Amino acid sequence: MATVEWDPDVPGVRLIDQTRLPGEERYLICRTAAEVARAIKDMVVRGAPAIGAAAGYGVALAAREGRLAEGAALVRAARPTARDLFWAADRVERAADPLEEAHRIARESIEACMAMGRHGAELLPHGANVVTICNTGALATVEYGTALGVIRAAHELGRAPFVYAMETRPRAQGARLTIWELRRLGIPHRLIADSAAGLLLQRGMAQVAISGADRVCANGDVVNKVGTYPLALLCREHGVPFYVAAPTSTIDPFTPAGAEVAIEERGEDEVTTFAPAGTPAWNPAFDVTPARLVAALITEAGVRHRTALPA
Amino acid sequence: MATVEWDPDVPGVRLIDQTRLPGEERYLICRTAAEVARAIKDMVVRGAPAIGAAAGYGVALAAREGRLAEGAALVRAARPTARDLFWAADRVERAADPLEEAHRIARESIEACMAMGRHGAELLPHGANVVTICNTGALATVEYGTALGVIRAAHELGRAPFVYAMETRPRAQGARLTIWELRRLGIPHRLIADSAAGLLLQRGMAQVAISGADRVCANGDVVNKVGTYPLALLCREHGVPFYVAAPTSTIDPFTPAGAEVAIEERGEDEVTTFAPAGTPAWNPAFDVTPARLVAALITEAGVRHRTALPA
Repeated sequence: MATVEWDPDVPGVRLIDQTRLPGEERYLICRTAAEVARAIKDMVVRGAPAIGAAAGYGVALAAREGRLAEGAALVRAARPTARDLFWAADRVERAADPLEEAHRIARESIEACMAMGRHGAELLPHGANVVTICNTGALATVEYGTALGVIRAAHELGRAPFVYAMETRPRAQGARLTIWELRRLGIPHRLIADSAAGLLLQRGMAQVAISGADRVCANGDVVNKVGTYPLALLCREHGVPFYVAAPTSTIDPFTPAGAEVAIEERGEDEVTTFAPAGTPAWNPAFDVTPARLVAALITEAGVRHRTALPA
Repeated sequence: MATVEWDPDVPGVRLIDQTRLPGEERYLICRTAAEVARAIKDMVVRGAPAIGAAAGYGVALAAREGRLAEGAALVRAARPTARDLFWAADRVERAADPLEEAHRIARESIEACMAMGRHGAELLPHGANVVTICNTGALATVEYGTALGVIRAAHELGRAPFVYAMETRPRAQGARLTIWELRRLGIPHRLIADSAAGLLLQRGMAQVAISGADRVCANGDVVNKVGTYPLALLCREHGVPFYVAAPTSTIDPFTPAGAEVAIEERGEDEVTTFAPAGTPAWNPAFDVTPARLVAALITEAGVRHRTALPA
């Protein structure tokens, strides 16, 4: 079962409801562009490539509804940061056959993940402890995953990775989704609080870090889940390579640098879980990892190394 | 009402139960050294100076029970990291009048906090946005606080600080306790996920960071709540001074460097809040901030600056 899947009988796009996992495995069917936009906004579907695939089907549904431009605008307005959303919406809106183009995006996404896995697995030494943030697995893509796909490929190739999964507050995608996937894949792992990454690296307990991306800027800056930047900074401090795995659809040649990307700020209630009612909060969903902290970018086209680890 | 208070009528030591806050304001009375040790272990009382004061009363209770050495050993075994625990237990165990010595420790602790507040407030520019981690207020001390005491003093002096409080997973002392205190003190604030400190500093939204300490080593390394080290590293990267406020009782002249301090690892269940049942986790309670990342140490004796901010 793919994370994002077209159901021709409805017709519509079926999404696993990621707000319910790991407690409940439930599916949502979106029959209109507006329903797809709502599912993206509410994070029923999340993860840049999965958002891209869903957005593609959303625009295809808009075409079927006979209101292509209006529906595409709704989809584009759902969330501001993930590049794949705009890239997929653009592709489908311009296509002669919108539904066929949406299918193509979904198929290409799976192929890109498999290729990233093959390329990236070589970067993981045998038996490496790998720290990762958020969820970048099958749930974040159509199938297989980006950063978690690399870990999965290494696992399948017998390289025996061990994963330290960061919880990823406030929405806990690491604790909820990555752990759920790692368990199903049989990859050994341990959950850590986000702030424990410091001691983890201080103690030399991880040899590699890897994350996905929501947008890679023209200069190589990586916009990804909030907390990625502190992790990358810790990696530099401790000489641990920090890799980013993302399909080329996440690369945005039109945005020169991370500082220019709109960082979505989500509801305060996501942060106030443990706080007294009515506590004011600031809840940015992403941050910017400067290109100089990224040891290599893994795409379906191969691995683009920095010539040397930054000092 | 102090966080740690002797009740001569019981006799025993009364503690506000910090595991229940902010939902419930409940007090626990410990009548024996064993009960005090249990309260420290269970984090009914937490925060290095508050642990120190409670430990002092615990050993005084052991003396009353006629089993001083045995009771003191119980108290010392409660938690491994906070220096104040051992310092206070030693003082009371050696004292001619254990209860009087425990009272003296509690009184001195309050005076030290007030002095730290006066000294430290000068480091906060008018209207500064201050980021802080964990809880270092009245709840972490007998009264007033260490790092939060500095912020409180700045507030009382009209310097108008604004606080970004880090949630402080896994036990959420920032969200639960610091927010509760800030609200009662009328100090404006906003809660952030721990991992949002990166973007906060990246955007120049905070001009100062300040934390408490559980142990300051002879070389100036600071052992404090897990997540302090990543915060300090971010501060260096963005040229924001990172201050530590701690009484001299937290300074451990017998431990040369942070790497030698026993870092408590707590139960996995503290981290697995959002994860599937049975998820394995790693839960260190502290980390080590190297001395070079600390712009100044604020004690009751004054401010000890580093000569320059580290490069």
